[in-house]
Amino acid sequence: MLGLSNVKTLAGGKGVEVEWANGSTARFHAVWLRDNSPDPETLSPGNGQRLIRIQDVPEDVAVKAATVFDDVRLEIVFSPEDKVVTFDAAWLMEHRYDRPETADTAPGWTGVEVVRWGEELQEKLPVASFREANRNADELRRWLADVRRYGVAKMTDMPLESGAICKVVELFGYLRETNYGRFFEVRTEVNPVNLAYTGLGLQVHTDNPYRDPVPTLQLLSCLENSVDGGDSVVVDSFKAVELLRGEAPEAFKALSSLPANYTYAGTGDVMLRSKRPMIELGPDGELLAVRFNNRSLGPLTDIPFDQMEAFYDGYRKLAEIMERPELAVTFKLQPGELFIVDNTRVTHGRVGYEGSGSRWLQGAYADLDGLRSTLAVLEQQATQEEQNEVVA
Amino acid sequence: MLGLSNVKTLAGGKGVEVEWANGSTARFHAVWLRDNSPDPETLSPGNGQRLIRIQDVPEDVAVKAATVFDDVRLEIVFSPEDKVVTFDAAWLMEHRYDRPETADTAPGWTGVEVVRWGEELQEKLPVASFREANRNADELRRWLADVRRYGVAKMTDMPLESGAICKVVELFGYLRETNYGRFFEVRTEVNPVNLAYTGLGLQVHTDNPYRDPVPTLQLLSCLENSVDGGDSVVVDSFKAVELLRGEAPEAFKALSSLPANYTYAGTGDVMLRSKRPMIELGPDGELLAVRFNNRSLGPLTDIPFDQMEAFYDGYRKLAEIMERPELAVTFKLQPGELFIVDNTRVTHGRVGYEGSGSRWLQGAYADLDGLRSTLAVLEQQATQEEQNEVVA
Repeated sequence: MLGLSNVKTLAGGKGVEVEWANGSTARFHAVWLRDNSPDPETLSPGNGQRLIRIQDVPEDVAVKAATVFDDVRLEIVFSPEDKVVTFDAAWLMEHRYDRPETADTAPGWTGVEVVRWGEELQEKLPVASFREANRNADELRRWLADVRRYGVAKMTDMPLESGAICKVVELFGYLRETNYGRFFEVRTEVNPVNLAYTGLGLQVHTDNPYRDPVPTLQLLSCLENSVDGGDSVVVDSFKAVELLRGEAPEAFKALSSLPANYTYAGTGDVMLRSKRPMIELGPDGELLAVRFNNRSLGPLTDIPFDQMEAFYDGYRKLAEIMERPELAVTFKLQPGELFIVDNTRVTHGRVGYEGSGSRWLQGAYADLDGLRSTLAVLEQQATQEEQNEVVA
Repeated sequence: MLGLSNVKTLAGGKGVEVEWANGSTARFHAVWLRDNSPDPETLSPGNGQRLIRIQDVPEDVAVKAATVFDDVRLEIVFSPEDKVVTFDAAWLMEHRYDRPETADTAPGWTGVEVVRWGEELQEKLPVASFREANRNADELRRWLADVRRYGVAKMTDMPLESGAICKVVELFGYLRETNYGRFFEVRTEVNPVNLAYTGLGLQVHTDNPYRDPVPTLQLLSCLENSVDGGDSVVVDSFKAVELLRGEAPEAFKALSSLPANYTYAGTGDVMLRSKRPMIELGPDGELLAVRFNNRSLGPLTDIPFDQMEAFYDGYRKLAEIMERPELAVTFKLQPGELFIVDNTRVTHGRVGYEGSGSRWLQGAYADLDGLRSTLAVLEQQATQEEQNEVVA
C-alpha cells in the first residue's frame, strides 16, 4: 500500500499538492475534492451516488487545512463550510488528474488498453472455449480483456443449436434488439433485405453505421459452413487510421472533421439514417469509433460542396489501406465457433461463396458498456483474490 | 413535380450544375454521382445497398456528357467507363449538398427538426392516447414527430398493468435492456441501488451517462401516485446550452471541449464508466447530446489540471441555468400515464416525496434510431396517401 508522505496547501487554498512515499506528486483542486468527498452527506454510502448538486458546493470553496494521518489518510478542512473530510491515499493515487503530458495526444490517439494489430494477430487470435468461459471466471475475464485490447476474439465449443449466440452475450451483457431481431440469420436468401444474406463477397465493414447509437459489439456464430469460400476476414480499422494519419494527414483530417451519412431502407418498414463522421474523435482527439461500410454510405448530403472531393479522396485512401493484405486476419468459422468484434473499431468481411454445401451463420448485437462493466468486476474480484492469497 | 430546366458540365468534367424549373441550382461532383448511381450494378434493386466499393469507381471518373430528358431525368455519361446512368430530378433535389450557407453554423447549432422550449411548453405538452396511437397511424406519427421536435411527450390511457411500458416501446422500436432489466421499478426501496429508488428529490438529469452508448430514449410510466410531492419536471438542455453559449461562451467552450467521466457501481456486479463531454458536438459543431447528472459525474480524471477550474465553473453555470423556473415544465404523472424523453437532450427530475400514499413508476430505455425510422416510414406513407388522394 503506497502511503502519503506530505501535503501542501496551494496558494489561496485553491487546492492541495500531495506527495506519495515513492516521491510522485499530484495537485487536486478544492472544488474537485469537495465534489468527490466520500462522506455520507456527499456520496450515498449504499450506492456511491452523489447526494449533492454542484450548487451545493460553495462557489468560494477552499482548503482551510490539510493534514496527513497514518500515511494513508488525508484530512481536509473545507472553508467556508468548515467541513472535515478524509480521503484515502490509494483512492487519490488512482484518481489523480495532474499528470505529466508524456503520452501521444495528437488527434487519433488511443489509450493504453487498445493494442493495434495487423496480420501478426493471425497466429495468436484470442480464443476461449464457451464451456470453459461459462464455468471459469478467469477464462471469461481473459477473453473479455482480449476483446477490449484487440477488439476481436473467437469462441469455440458452442452448442450446435439455433440461438446459442444469445448465451454468449449473457456471459457479459445484454443483446441489442434491432429490426433484424434479437438475433438474425446470415445465409443466402432469395429476396435478401441485406446483401449480407447473399453469397456475395463483402468488403470489410463495421455493421449498422446507419444506426445511432450504433451497436458497439457484433457477434457471428456458425452452425453450418461446408461451402467453398465464405472465409471471414477482420481488419483493425484503428490500425488503418493510424497508417492513414501518417501517410495522408489531409485524408485523416477530412474523414474526422466532416460528417458522413449512412442509410438503410432494405424493407418497407425501415428507414434508418445517421449523420456521423467516418472517423470519430472525442473532444480531446481520442479515436473513438470508425464507421466504414461501402454498402450503406451516403448519399452524402451534409458535406459542403467545396469539401466533397477531399472527403472522397480520403475515403478512397482509407479503403485502400483497409484492403492491404498485411492488415488482414482471415479464418473460416467452423460449426460451433463464433467471433465477436468491437463494432466501433474492428471491421469484418467475407470472401464470396457459391456452389454446393451450406453456410448458416447467426448474428447478434450487444454493447460495450455491459462487457466493460463485467470485465471490471471480474478484474476487481481477481485482484481481491490475489490480495487475500498474499494475506493468507 | 419540380422538373429540371437545364444542366451544364463543370470544367474538366468534374461534375455538373443542374437547374430546376423554379430557378434553383446545385452542383454535383462526378465522383458523388457515380458513387450514388441508381443502376442495378451499383445499387441493389432489392434493398438499395451499394454493390461496389469506392475503389471500383475509377479515380479519374468524370462527366463526359450530361443531358436532361423530359424535364425529370438527368442522363450522365461517365468516363472512363463510358457508363450511362439516369438520375431522377426529385431525387437530385432531395439530396443536393451544394447549398448556400445561410443557417446558423456556430458551434452548438441544431437542425430545423429541433425546437427548443422553456416553460411555455407547459400548456401544450405533446400528448397522445395509447389506445388511439395503437390503432391510428396518424396519431402515432404526430406523437413521434413531437418527440423528435421537442424531445418530450406524454401518453395517457395506458393499461394499468405492470410492464405496459413495453407495449409503448413496441409502437416504434426496441427496448434497450440493461443491468436494471428490460424495464425497472421506480419506487422507494430499503436498500436502493440507485437514488432514483428513494423518496429524495432528484435534480434534473439525463439518465445513465455512465453508459456508452447511452440509452437515447427513456420512458417512465405511472401505476400509482398518491403521495404528496413526486411531481415530475423536465427541462430542455438544448435550450439551456443555447443560453449558456450566449451568457458564458467560455463555459460552453469548456464543457464542449473537455471530456467528463461518469460512473456507476451501485451493486457489486456492475462497474460502469464512461468518458464523454458534458456537451457533445459533432465535427461540424452540431449539438448532438448533453450528459447532465449530478449523481454520477466523476471523479473527473481526464481533464488536465490547468483546465479543471474552467470545467467546474462551466458546470456550475450550466447547472444554474438548468434550474431556472422559466425553463421548467412540471406535471404529476397519474396512474395510466407515461412520459418519454429524448435522453440525449431533455433532462428530467422530480420533487421529493414522503409520508402516506404510494408512488410506483416503471422505467425503460429504448433508442432513437428505431423511433426515427418508424416515424420516417409513417411520414412516407402519409405523403403517398396524400398524393393518391390528389390523383383520385
